[in-house]
Amino acid sequence: MTLPKVLAFDVFGTVVDWHGSIWHEAESIIPGVDGNKFASAWRAGYKPAMDEVRSGKRGWTKIDDLHRIILDRILADFGIALEEEKRRHLNRAWHRLAPWPDTVSGMTRLKSKYTLTTLSNGNLGLLANMAKHGGLPWDLILSAEVFRHYKPDPETYLGVAEIFDIQPAEVMLVAAHEDDLDAAKACGLQTAFVERPHEYGPDMTVPKGDLSRFTFAAHDMNHLAGQMGA
Amino acid sequence: MTLPKVLAFDVFGTVVDWHGSIWHEAESIIPGVDGNKFASAWRAGYKPAMDEVRSGKRGWTKIDDLHRIILDRILADFGIALEEEKRRHLNRAWHRLAPWPDTVSGMTRLKSKYTLTTLSNGNLGLLANMAKHGGLPWDLILSAEVFRHYKPDPETYLGVAEIFDIQPAEVMLVAAHEDDLDAAKACGLQTAFVERPHEYGPDMTVPKGDLSRFTFAAHDMNHLAGQMGA
Repeated sequence: MTLPKVLAFDVFGTVVDWHGSIWHEAESIIPGVDGNKFASAWRAGYKPAMDEVRSGKRGWTKIDDLHRIILDRILADFGIALEEEKRRHLNRAWHRLAPWPDTVSGMTRLKSKYTLTTLSNGNLGLLANMAKHGGLPWDLILSAEVFRHYKPDPETYLGVAEIFDIQPAEVMLVAAHEDDLDAAKACGLQTAFVERPHEYGPDMTVPKGDLSRFTFAAHDMNHLAGQMGA
Repeated sequence: MTLPKVLAFDVFGTVVDWHGSIWHEAESIIPGVDGNKFASAWRAGYKPAMDEVRSGKRGWTKIDDLHRIILDRILADFGIALEEEKRRHLNRAWHRLAPWPDTVSGMTRLKSKYTLTTLSNGNLGLLANMAKHGGLPWDLILSAEVFRHYKPDPETYLGVAEIFDIQPAEVMLVAAHEDDLDAAKACGLQTAFVERPHEYGPDMTVPKGDLSRFTFAAHDMNHLAGQMGA
């Protein structure tokens, strides 16, 4: 097995704890709300909204704007009145998501040996603000916004190899989501599964499939760094 | 005057010493060549090649590929036979350009107070490799490749503001080139001139215009950081 040159990281859930961060921010901005349910509801609107873009039903729309459309809808569903300025602030909570405890130390080890890039559906401004907020040491920030395609469209995975002028097999996707990894594998990328059992909060667990189909499977980023000689 | 939120840096010449680096690499790869003249000749082909893309005469072509087209031409002009592998290695010298002595310390100070992004005609892979090689602490790497327009097209300067969802006046272009700064200013950006008297090597000096038209004028990055309270 040849080790990859570039590690492309999924971000929401894999690198940062969106559920815990949104839960906390929602409760600090909206008195009395159930932040746990609110976070889950907001995220539940994410994939359908992206699928509208992927299918062409909706023109190219960045995640900040999709988040806002979903936010306005769930505020109505929850019966919450919130002024415009607070909506804007809450929508930017996705720019302030906290890294998992092992993220920065594991990434720092991996960065000593590999080139680290994001491969996220989040837009560039969001990812840059998040990196500055959380101290994430990226070598490059790549986004669906660069490719004008959302994952799991092949243009995103293959786009990383094209950007670095290397072969798809020289890129490894690092993600907590098996469907993302399967799509990357189908494009010829190497794959690393990172376990994030609390991604969806304390009430929900995701059943795991056969992880042996991925190049690596790790409990956290430091475990991955250890397996990859970093 | 309101200070900007995002500093967008020109890279070739402003952040890194392309002339000195290419000179050194050319002489180490091609025995007996005059690296000083070779670097100047290679760079002289740069603007005409980009102008072909800007005018639509040539379809979108990234800088790595433009550099290679120019390299093949000047090798012929210099009467140099060079095998394919060495041409590829020499072409990638643009990924290994060295920062000016004040660059990393000045950027590190500025990063504590501002968000730092590239705004370069260099492609993303080139800029990411260069940052890793030289330890450049970018918050984000933006390129003409993202906007599919080369500077000085307005789409590049205005694109930075759009990416961060801020006003053009909240962005400041940092550059050693007055024409780049003038184009940014025409789009409503703030501007910082950084003096790089040796950009074109020891034999050539560039006359300076009236620098008072820019928001800041600095001798180097640390001087700029000092003026901007960082």
